Amino acid sequence: MTYLFNDPADFATQAVTGLARSHPDHVAVVHGGVVRSTETPRGQPALVIGGGSGHYPAFAGWVGPGMGHGAPCGNVFASPSASQVHSVARNAESGGGVILGFGNYAGDVLHFGAAAEKLRAEGIDARLVTVSDDIVSNTPENHRDRRGIAGDLPVFKIVGAAIEAGADLDEAERIAQAANDATRSFGVAFDGPTLPGAAEALFHVPDGQMGVGLGIHGEPGVREEPVGSAAEIARLLVEGVLAEQPPRAEGGYAGRAAVVLNGLGTVKYEELFVVYATVAELLEDAGITVVRPEVGELVTSLDMAGLSLTLVFLDEELEQHWLAPVDTPALRRGAMPVRERPRRATFWEPGADETPTSTEESRAVAARIGGVLELFEAVCAREEAELGRIDAIAGDGDHGQGMAYGSAGAANAARAALADGAGARTLLVRAGEAWSESAGGTSGALWGAALIAAGGVFADDSGSSPRTVVDALDAGIDAVLRLGGAAVGDKTMVDAALPFRTTLDRAFTGDDAAAAIQEAARTARAAADATADITAALGRARVLGDRSLGTPDPGAISFSLLMAELGEHLS
Amino acid sequence: MTYLFNDPADFATQAVTGLARSHPDHVAVVHGGVVRSTETPRGQPALVIGGGSGHYPAFAGWVGPGMGHGAPCGNVFASPSASQVHSVARNAESGGGVILGFGNYAGDVLHFGAAAEKLRAEGIDARLVTVSDDIVSNTPENHRDRRGIAGDLPVFKIVGAAIEAGADLDEAERIAQAANDATRSFGVAFDGPTLPGAAEALFHVPDGQMGVGLGIHGEPGVREEPVGSAAEIARLLVEGVLAEQPPRAEGGYAGRAAVVLNGLGTVKYEELFVVYATVAELLEDAGITVVRPEVGELVTSLDMAGLSLTLVFLDEELEQHWLAPVDTPALRRGAMPVRERPRRATFWEPGADETPTSTEESRAVAARIGGVLELFEAVCAREEAELGRIDAIAGDGDHGQGMAYGSAGAANAARAALADGAGARTLLVRAGEAWSESAGGTSGALWGAALIAAGGVFADDSGSSPRTVVDALDAGIDAVLRLGGAAVGDKTMVDAALPFRTTLDRAFTGDDAAAAIQEAARTARAAADATADITAALGRARVLGDRSLGTPDPGAISFSLLMAELGEHLS
Repeated sequence: MTYLFNDPADFATQAVTGLARSHPDHVAVVHGGVVRSTETPRGQPALVIGGGSGHYPAFAGWVGPGMGHGAPCGNVFASPSASQVHSVARNAESGGGVILGFGNYAGDVLHFGAAAEKLRAEGIDARLVTVSDDIVSNTPENHRDRRGIAGDLPVFKIVGAAIEAGADLDEAERIAQAANDATRSFGVAFDGPTLPGAAEALFHVPDGQMGVGLGIHGEPGVREEPVGSAAEIARLLVEGVLAEQPPRAEGGYAGRAAVVLNGLGTVKYEELFVVYATVAELLEDAGITVVRPEVGELVTSLDMAGLSLTLVFLDEELEQHWLAPVDTPALRRGAMPVRERPRRATFWEPGADETPTSTEESRAVAARIGGVLELFEAVCAREEAELGRIDAIAGDGDHGQGMAYGSAGAANAARAALADGAGARTLLVRAGEAWSESAGGTSGALWGAALIAAGGVFADDSGSSPRTVVDALDAGIDAVLRLGGAAVGDKTMVDAALPFRTTLDRAFTGDDAAAAIQEAARTARAAADATADITAALGRARVLGDRSLGTPDPGAISFSLLMAELGEHLS
Repeated sequence: MTYLFNDPADFATQAVTGLARSHPDHVAVVHGGVVRSTETPRGQPALVIGGGSGHYPAFAGWVGPGMGHGAPCGNVFASPSASQVHSVARNAESGGGVILGFGNYAGDVLHFGAAAEKLRAEGIDARLVTVSDDIVSNTPENHRDRRGIAGDLPVFKIVGAAIEAGADLDEAERIAQAANDATRSFGVAFDGPTLPGAAEALFHVPDGQMGVGLGIHGEPGVREEPVGSAAEIARLLVEGVLAEQPPRAEGGYAGRAAVVLNGLGTVKYEELFVVYATVAELLEDAGITVVRPEVGELVTSLDMAGLSLTLVFLDEELEQHWLAPVDTPALRRGAMPVRERPRRATFWEPGADETPTSTEESRAVAARIGGVLELFEAVCAREEAELGRIDAIAGDGDHGQGMAYGSAGAANAARAALADGAGARTLLVRAGEAWSESAGGTSGALWGAALIAAGGVFADDSGSSPRTVVDALDAGIDAVLRLGGAAVGDKTMVDAALPFRTTLDRAFTGDDAAAAIQEAARTARAAADATADITAALGRARVLGDRSLGTPDPGAISFSLLMAELGEHLS
């Protein structure tokens, strides 16, 4: 049970407030989460780590010198929104770019990715680091596609230390990737967590059984087994993780490993120590030297009962950063090198940015883009009912409304931006944000990110060419591919967008964007119609997958409709 | 539930092993618990803190520079035995004496007290510091008789820092007492803990209710109330603790307070932060400045669901020590001043002490004491059945057996000590230890401690006088009074022992101990017989208190019997 809450809807926000009040020397509240309450040296990359709430000390408990610079805090077990991530990143960044670190979950990939698009469009270099340590969630060959669990701790600890030691953004990204590539976790669970205000746990494991390979949000395990003794469970976990022990190599892994034995919430400290006594023995027997283990509640899942074992197969570089001092609310080691860390006085707030100055040329482009967004608004309003009807057959029927709300929000924002004298880039970034916030849902986030990414191709101080228009469309589609995680054949917008992009790039010869877009839109429409013949593999429609046979994907249809109207409008 | 264990009987030991393996730089395992794995500066008092297991990070998680020097670890929710406490203290002490710190529970008072008797008999100065912060467990006037809960953390943190800053034993004891006098806690619980291997929790609170004032081992609350919102619970706790806020005083409490919001196990971090957000507000409204709060799981109770709020009303001295650096497995703050802390190479083991050299005079006394112990063995064997019969009427019937086992163990140990050439003090200390371990139970521990305390009056290098014998009896009875926690009228051994002591001191005029003892023994017998007219108030007999009417207390009877035989033997 979760016992202590006021309005469950405010749980995450109030928790962040309490955290900041109890650790004023470490963290300060900003829109969307927390950042260090002390100044970051100018030019230092910022490590922004986050995810849903309910996992404390992940992630807000790791903000401070030697580790995170900020943590966006979503609702319980829900990704923070792109605007939360963006706000925290804007507050955390200090001229050295931003690493956005998060566990590999679809929602986080989408929202952190969308925030990255916006940061880049604003001229801030942003890199995405997804942690993917859970060995049961994919094959060893697809390590980077696994989901992230307690590996968050060592990966972010190592990157944070590297940054504190002077790594620039490229170097920090490289080390983060190396740390994630060297990290493996494996867990079991005995009972599920209960959300604040809920009467029942998210799931239960049958009495006397344990769920092997359960995730940290109630994802089903790969199998159930009778509960073993502490020593048997220790052996299961150690053998699981060691199955992916890399070969020892000169200058690389030499049999030294960082070890994290993590309790998910109601498995208590003494229990973890009993398990660890056997883990330590088994690792010794396997010829592995344990380097600075952490045994405790490190990545929790509210009151879930379970534990996981994480090993980082260290090389010299990773070990050095794993051992470095750190000073955060929940993780403290050694003594930070003495350095002035003055208390921060000012914070960035959403909406606080002034409209960047723009040239007349760029404003002219902006006006034309505004016209396109008004066209999209009109088309979406016209098609709302039909898109809703198609979506309701196998989905939740909200696609028409989402497109209508999103495009209307974007058109409104564009009008306001034009009135503010915004150039083309700023107008598209604001329209994209508005689309995402007005529409909600996955398609809203993807359309928003696409507009923002397209905005990054334009500039506030120059005009545009037909090439710019084509590049912007490509950039928008690339953002959808990056963030949505869908491939052709999954019955999503991508089934129309990817053929569109291929045809557009082939058809465009350098002068007539409109003709190329029209040709590409025809390809997209044919591809969208063809989705009627396949079964949905992603998103909510997946649940009722078979029912979707015979009906095309609404996202693919709406995409092809808008591109067809765009081509006609431009011609 | 407690899910992770092997043999539940080995749970506490295996947890200690795992703790030490995960924190080799902080702690090392010794018989009975853990001590710092680094050397303590010569002459520094040792802070030995402990209690049952199941409360991690209390107490073993607080061993390290700036806090504890050692922690005896009992079984789950059970006091460590006197020999465990003694062993850890012997390993922790470094020539500056020992502070034995523990929460105020009968079992801990008994076993830590018995260990202190033994340390003193061995020439090591030992002071007892009981933490008694739980406001619901007694009246404000009887603050020092309350039970200890999460106040353990700030009290031990403050004493540890004072010792690190150079306090000697007297000073450390004074500061410990001042810290406990300034500390108040108040808690609520929603559900009870489950012992390793048990199928059912120790207790449940009815659904939708919370137990106000529940202890940390499943002691019943003072009342049940409907579960409130987080803010309502925060208000309840703050108002409870602030009801005992002292007046502000020049040079004393000035409105500054250390704050600990403690989760007992399954109330998780975000929940505690939600509560803390309101706690911080309410304290601010009350004009209190919060100094370095701790919000988290600090004194747990396995998987119990509940929380408590602790305030320490600080003066300048307490604040300085509360804020000082500390470096332990579970509590770390700031940077410890640089000081060489070499890794310890040697540890003390029970039985490792050589028999101290003794004089012929002392060995002669020892032989006579050995004779007394053989007499006690014979008397107890003779009376075993009758003592058992009396005890069975309202108790558990084991008093006869306990006395027989204990006295036989003591007589055996005395024979072995004589063979080793031990003097009078060493013989009695060993006999006392053996009595306690052979008999078990409360009366065994008390008789053991009495013999050990009596031993402290004798010496290994001198003879004895009639005065020594009387002083030794007084010292033994004083130990029983200190450790047993009983008063006259509670229907315990004290009802015979205290009149015995009073008569003995009056009757003894300096030369004839035997006559004085005989007179005192008659008083004791009369007093023991008179216990038939009262109802048991302590111990197991309390449960069946009324059934004890008409039967004397077996402990009072056995005491008076042995004293009568002693007087006759000496005359």
